[in-house]
Amino acid sequence: MTGIIAIAAAIAVFTGIGAGVGISLATGKAVEGIARQPEAAGQIRNVMLLGAVLAEATAIYGLVVALVLVFLKMG
Amino acid sequence: MTGIIAIAAAIAVFTGIGAGVGISLATGKAVEGIARQPEAAGQIRNVMLLGAVLAEATAIYGLVVALVLVFLKMG
Amino acid sequence: MTGIIAIAAAIAVFTGIGAGVGISLATGKAVEGIARQPEAAGQIRNVMLLGAVLAEATAIYGLVVALVLVFLKMG
Amino acid sequence: MTGIIAIAAAIAVFTGIGAGVGISLATGKAVEGIARQPEAAGQIRNVMLLGAVLAEATAIYGLVVALVLVFLKMG
Amino acid sequence: MTGIIAIAAAIAVFTGIGAGVGISLATGKAVEGIARQPEAAGQIRNVMLLGAVLAEATAIYGLVVALVLVFLKMG
Amino acid sequence: MTGIIAIAAAIAVFTGIGAGVGISLATGKAVEGIARQPEAAGQIRNVMLLGAVLAEATAIYGLVVALVLVFLKMG
Amino acid sequence: MTGIIAIAAAIAVFTGIGAGVGISLATGKAVEGIARQPEAAGQIRNVMLLGAVLAEATAIYGLVVALVLVFLKMG
Amino acid sequence: MTGIIAIAAAIAVFTGIGAGVGISLATGKAVEGIARQPEAAGQIRNVMLLGAVLAEATAIYGLVVALVLVFLKMG
Amino acid sequence: MTGIIAIAAAIAVFTGIGAGVGISLATGKAVEGIARQPEAAGQIRNVMLLGAVLAEATAIYGLVVALVLVFLKMG
Amino acid sequence: MTGIIAIAAAIAVFTGIGAGVGISLATGKAVEGIARQPEAAGQIRNVMLLGAVLAEATAIYGLVVALVLVFLKMG
Amino acid sequence: MTGIIAIAAAIAVFTGIGAGVGISLATGKAVEGIARQPEAAGQIRNVMLLGAVLAEATAIYGLVVALVLVFLKMG
Amino acid sequence: MTGIIAIAAAIAVFTGIGAGVGISLATGKAVEGIARQPEAAGQIRNVMLLGAVLAEATAIYGLVVALVLVFLKMG
Amino acid sequence: MTGIIAIAAAIAVFTGIGAGVGISLATGKAVEGIARQPEAAGQIRNVMLLGAVLAEATAIYGLVVALVLVFLKMG
Amino acid sequence: MTGIIAIAAAIAVFTGIGAGVGISLATGKAVEGIARQPEAAGQIRNVMLLGAVLAEATAIYGLVVALVLVFLKMG
Repeated sequence: MTGIIAIAAAIAVFTGIGAGVGISLATGKAVEGIARQPEAAGQIRNVMLLGAVLAEATAIYGLVVALVLVFLKMG
Repeated sequence: MTGIIAIAAAIAVFTGIGAGVGISLATGKAVEGIARQPEAAGQIRNVMLLGAVLAEATAIYGLVVALVLVFLKMG
Repeated sequence: MTGIIAIAAAIAVFTGIGAGVGISLATGKAVEGIARQPEAAGQIRNVMLLGAVLAEATAIYGLVVALVLVFLKMG
Repeated sequence: MTGIIAIAAAIAVFTGIGAGVGISLATGKAVEGIARQPEAAGQIRNVMLLGAVLAEATAIYGLVVALVLVFLKMG
Repeated sequence: MTGIIAIAAAIAVFTGIGAGVGISLATGKAVEGIARQPEAAGQIRNVMLLGAVLAEATAIYGLVVALVLVFLKMG
Repeated sequence: MTGIIAIAAAIAVFTGIGAGVGISLATGKAVEGIARQPEAAGQIRNVMLLGAVLAEATAIYGLVVALVLVFLKMG
Repeated sequence: MTGIIAIAAAIAVFTGIGAGVGISLATGKAVEGIARQPEAAGQIRNVMLLGAVLAEATAIYGLVVALVLVFLKMG
Repeated sequence: MTGIIAIAAAIAVFTGIGAGVGISLATGKAVEGIARQPEAAGQIRNVMLLGAVLAEATAIYGLVVALVLVFLKMG
Repeated sequence: MTGIIAIAAAIAVFTGIGAGVGISLATGKAVEGIARQPEAAGQIRNVMLLGAVLAEATAIYGLVVALVLVFLKMG
Repeated sequence: MTGIIAIAAAIAVFTGIGAGVGISLATGKAVEGIARQPEAAGQIRNVMLLGAVLAEATAIYGLVVALVLVFLKMG
Repeated sequence: MTGIIAIAAAIAVFTGIGAGVGISLATGKAVEGIARQPEAAGQIRNVMLLGAVLAEATAIYGLVVALVLVFLKMG
Repeated sequence: MTGIIAIAAAIAVFTGIGAGVGISLATGKAVEGIARQPEAAGQIRNVMLLGAVLAEATAIYGLVVALVLVFLKMG
Repeated sequence: MTGIIAIAAAIAVFTGIGAGVGISLATGKAVEGIARQPEAAGQIRNVMLLGAVLAEATAIYGLVVALVLVFLKMG
Repeated sequence: MTGIIAIAAAIAVFTGIGAGVGISLATGKAVEGIARQPEAAGQIRNVMLLGAVLAEATAIYGLVVALVLVFLKMG
């Protein structure tokens, strides 16, 4: 049955695709904003980081579940 | 039967992809707004956080169900 | 048969992906609106909260069905 | 056979994803409208609520069918 | 065979996702229209309701078929 | 074999999703048009109804086939 | 084998989803056109009907094949 | 084996979904064109019909193959 | 084995969906062009026909393979 | 095993859907270009033909593989 | 086992769908560019050809693998 | 069972597709920003790198899980 | 087992669809840029080639894996 | 079991499709930027290369896992 658990770990870590695309889009917008308003670069970078960390969290949830499945089940 | 429960946990945590993409889009809009109106940065950050927390909640629902499935079933 | 019920609970909680993306989009629009009209920030936050709560409700329906399935069936 | 009924309940409650995304989009438009015309905020909130309730209804149809399936079949 | 009928009922009620998204989009446009032309709010609400009722009908068709399947078959 | 016929009825009534989304989009355009040209509201409502009835017809085709399958086959 | 034929009839009538969405989009454009040029309403309605009838035809092809399958095969 | 042939006929007639959506889009553009240039209505209707007939042809190809499969195979 | 060949013929003729949507889009653009430049209607119709014939060819390839499969295999 | 080869031939000829949509889009752009710049109609038609022939080639690759599979394998 | 190899050859040649759509889009842009800047037609045609050849290459990779599979395996 | 683990490793590394598309989109925006505001190139490159590293992380999570699965399980 | 390896080779070479679409889009942008700024044609062609080669590389990775699978496994 | 490992290698190398599309989009933006601001061509090319290398990395992760699977498992 370990094969199916490996598949499950892969699906769980696959959650990161949302954050992978999303953070990049946010970065794109931040870069656009800095190009338009260079003096607000500090504030823009801070807010972008805040959102990116919240989004990155969903990828980490997936990673945690994947690692729990791999090491707890199969160890 | 534990293999199928692992798949279920993976699908449950996969819910986070919506929040992962969504929070990033909201961040992008917030960053755009700050670039256009730097003096409203405080209010923008607050509203963005409020929405991001509500969206993050859906990712956490998925995480909770995933952990319940993993530890309650298989423990 | 508990394995299939776990899959069902995962699909049910997966409903939250709609609210996860949607609330974020609404947040993005609210943030955009505040950047354009900072003095309407109070009204905008109220309407955004009203809609976000209604959308969050669909995620909670999914969570409720998931928990009912997990604890009623498998308890 | 209760496992398949659980899957069916999950699919039924999954209907709410449409309302979850949709209500949020309507909220986004309402918020945009208030930012552009703050004095029409009352009318905008009323029409938004009217539409959101009709959309929420589709999510509730799904929830009702899900609960009927869970409690009538499996009780 | 009742399990497959439950799946069928779930697919039937799932039809409501179209109306759930659609009515919300119409609401969004109505709200936009009121923000642009507040004095036409009455006419806009009437036409929106007319269309929303026709769209809601498709969700109700699905609900009717779902209930027919559940109570006629399994009763 | 009645289970598969129930699935078929569900797929048939699912056709209504097209009309459910479509009529709503047409309603949204009609509402937009009235906001821009309130004095043409009568003509706009008539043409919208004409198209919505033709679109609703496709949902009714699906409903008819679904009911034929349910009552003719399983009665 | 009648169950599979019922599925086939459902897929055939499902063709109507294209016309259901399409006619609605055409209606939306017609309504937009009338709002912009109310005096061309007659010509616009005629051309819209012409196209809608051609599109409706594809839904009717599906309905015909569905009914042929149901009554010829299973009668 | 007649059940699978019925499925095949359904898939074949399903080709019409492309023409169903497409002709409607062309109608929408034609209607838009007439609203902008009412005196070119004749030419516009002619070209629209020409294209719609070519597109309708693909739906008819599907219908022909569907009927060939139904009556040649199963007759 | 004739049932699978029927499915194959259906998939082959399904190729026409691309041409069905595409030719309609080209027609829409042609109609738009005539509305903007009525005196170029002749040239526009010629080029549209040229492209539509090339696209229609792909639908006919599918039809030819479908008929070859039906009559050569099953005859 | 000839049934699966028929499926393979159908998938191969299905490649033409890309060219079917694509050539139509290129035709639409060409028609738009002629409407804007009627005196460049000759150059536009030439370049459009050049691209359409290259795209058509991919449909023909699919057709060739389909015919090779049908006549070489099953002959 | 030759049937599955035929399927594989079909999937391989199906790669051409990307080039079929893509080259057409590039042609559309080239045609648009010539309409806007007829005197740059030579340079535009050259660059378009360069890119189209590189894209066509991916279709040819698929064709080569398809033919290798058909003639090497089944010969 | 090693075959299924290999599939799991492939799905896990497939997570990188999100970062692959996303980083490129962010790069596109950064390049656009530099073209519009060449003197802010330094700040833009820094923010782009920051976001790209966070997005790249999701691809690396997938790679790590893939390698863990390959070497821990199969070693 | 060679049949499944053939499928694997086909999936591997299918990777080229991304480069096939992408290079064409880059070509379209390059052609658009030359139409707007003919004197920068040299620089534009160079950068386009640089990016196209990097993208082509992903198609070649797929081709290499496909050929390795075909000749190493089946030889 | 080597057949399934070949499929896994194919899925792993398929990751490159994201980089294949993405790098091309970034190239398109870079080319657009050079056309608008030819004197910033150097900086634009550098940033584009930086992002393209990071995106290319995800394709290479896939290639590495594919090669590991092919040579380690099957060697």
